[in-house]
Amino acid sequence: MAFDKLQDGILRMRNPTVFGLDPKPDYIPSHIMEKHISEDGLSLQTVAEAYLEFNRGLIDALCDVAPAVKPQSAYYEALGSAGVWCLEQTARYAAHKGLYTIADVKRGDIGTTAEAYSAAYLGRFGLGGGSTVEPFGFDAVTVNAYLGSDGLKPFLKTCRENDKAFFALVKTSNPSSGELQDRTFSDGRTLYETVGDLLAEITEGERDRYGYSRVGAVVGATYPEELAKLRRRLTSIFFLVPGYGAQGGSAADAAHAFGKNGTGAVINSSRAIMCAWKKTGNDGRDYMEAARAEAVRMRDDLRAAIGL
Amino acid sequence: MAFDKLQDGILRMRNPTVFGLDPKPDYIPSHIMEKHISEDGLSLQTVAEAYLEFNRGLIDALCDVAPAVKPQSAYYEALGSAGVWCLEQTARYAAHKGLYTIADVKRGDIGTTAEAYSAAYLGRFGLGGGSTVEPFGFDAVTVNAYLGSDGLKPFLKTCRENDKAFFALVKTSNPSSGELQDRTFSDGRTLYETVGDLLAEITEGERDRYGYSRVGAVVGATYPEELAKLRRRLTSIFFLVPGYGAQGGSAADAAHAFGKNGTGAVINSSRAIMCAWKKTGNDGRDYMEAARAEAVRMRDDLRAAIGL
Repeated sequence: MAFDKLQDGILRMRNPTVFGLDPKPDYIPSHIMEKHISEDGLSLQTVAEAYLEFNRGLIDALCDVAPAVKPQSAYYEALGSAGVWCLEQTARYAAHKGLYTIADVKRGDIGTTAEAYSAAYLGRFGLGGGSTVEPFGFDAVTVNAYLGSDGLKPFLKTCRENDKAFFALVKTSNPSSGELQDRTFSDGRTLYETVGDLLAEITEGERDRYGYSRVGAVVGATYPEELAKLRRRLTSIFFLVPGYGAQGGSAADAAHAFGKNGTGAVINSSRAIMCAWKKTGNDGRDYMEAARAEAVRMRDDLRAAIGL
Repeated sequence: MAFDKLQDGILRMRNPTVFGLDPKPDYIPSHIMEKHISEDGLSLQTVAEAYLEFNRGLIDALCDVAPAVKPQSAYYEALGSAGVWCLEQTARYAAHKGLYTIADVKRGDIGTTAEAYSAAYLGRFGLGGGSTVEPFGFDAVTVNAYLGSDGLKPFLKTCRENDKAFFALVKTSNPSSGELQDRTFSDGRTLYETVGDLLAEITEGERDRYGYSRVGAVVGATYPEELAKLRRRLTSIFFLVPGYGAQGGSAADAAHAFGKNGTGAVINSSRAIMCAWKKTGNDGRDYMEAARAEAVRMRDDLRAAIGL
């Protein structure tokens, strides 16, 4: 159920890493970008095709090292519909290669709209006459809980129907995350604790083989104390942890995210893996090997810290 | 600056309405859907083309009655990249017809990602060599402030560079909006008041011809008391007000959103206008006339309540 597939992958590879695919033009080795420009000219579609080639290369290089992939939708939407085409193709290719796929879209809206979002990323679209299509087919999605349970329940419903999962933002990794999230309500709980508790409430009783529910939480490694407190508070909630590496979180910080036997969390790295080729002193033709070496380094760093 | 164009349109048409374009298959008159299916077969692209014809018809019917249009991105993303193509085309057509265009995307993310989102919807993408493309070209966008000022500042920067604006969710229209938003922090302010105050802080000193800043707030007409209190508290913040009509808010409720002389707010209606044809007893070939009649009825209802 839900996170079982992800957790199985983590234990099989002894690696709780989800690698981000957050492409920008200057992350793409020039031989890839130039090939597509010379073939098709300069356009958003050309950039999208270069992104896709780059993503496929990273997926090929990493799919036996890391169990999960998380494309950040913003970098695809930045190209308009051409970018969203690349996101579709990336999701399909990653699933085909056996990866657990997380759409980092951070959507949150009123009930009927949340239904449309959850169907888009985790479900199917009804074309009529019983015919349906899966636009993206992700395994999980990130959501924003600001609208309360109305905005979460349609995601939960779609997840139950399709055996999928979602992660809601609880304590984010960015410097200003405390401006709202750390404030304390009159009942003594912070906003982020209140959101965390809400996630536990809406999935009361649902547990997978590892003891986790269908709903996860995004909690940054950049706030290790809060991360440790949340791990103790939300024993049935699976954590998606950004902030390792480029944003400043260490493996020891990220280790606070795990429950018993290295279960219950997955740690994200994006730039350090995607841009590893920039540190080899070569021209980028070695981007796959460089990404793999960085993913192995991160895996070993996490293994040592967690005892996995 | 920023909301001037929208406010000018509201005063010229004496109508503070933004009409939503939130298409679903059963909102589309069957003659449109069937024509596209018979021409192109059943696919997400076919549905996207039917949506676009429907949207263009509504824009043609309403562009001299209502000053602004707000497509809800979820209904386009539900079709994958084909739907996002329709969103691009809809935004372009609405802008071409002189409408103020609001992308209802409710994005919110960490700094670098917020940059990508703001560039996507309000800015341009750099293809290299000084060449740039505007993927969507909206005038304004909705955002979620849960991540704090880090997630808002990139939007503000893009807005300043391109003379655009954004609306952040403050007090949403849905039934469970109070679960988090109405809770009171230890300093006596609710979460929604705290978000509202944050918006006022980050645009301190920036005022357009009507006295409003570059940042707006989403405040539901379904909570008229909170709406009235927020209007008094946030004198320089322009309000985008959902919840009129189908969700239960009346014109008298929505009237609380306005400042002096009917300025400072725009009221959304989506389903009542898009689906007006379902109430005429005809087959949907009159959808443009029906939508226009409903938009005129709403305009007159708001005019009377506001004294515009």
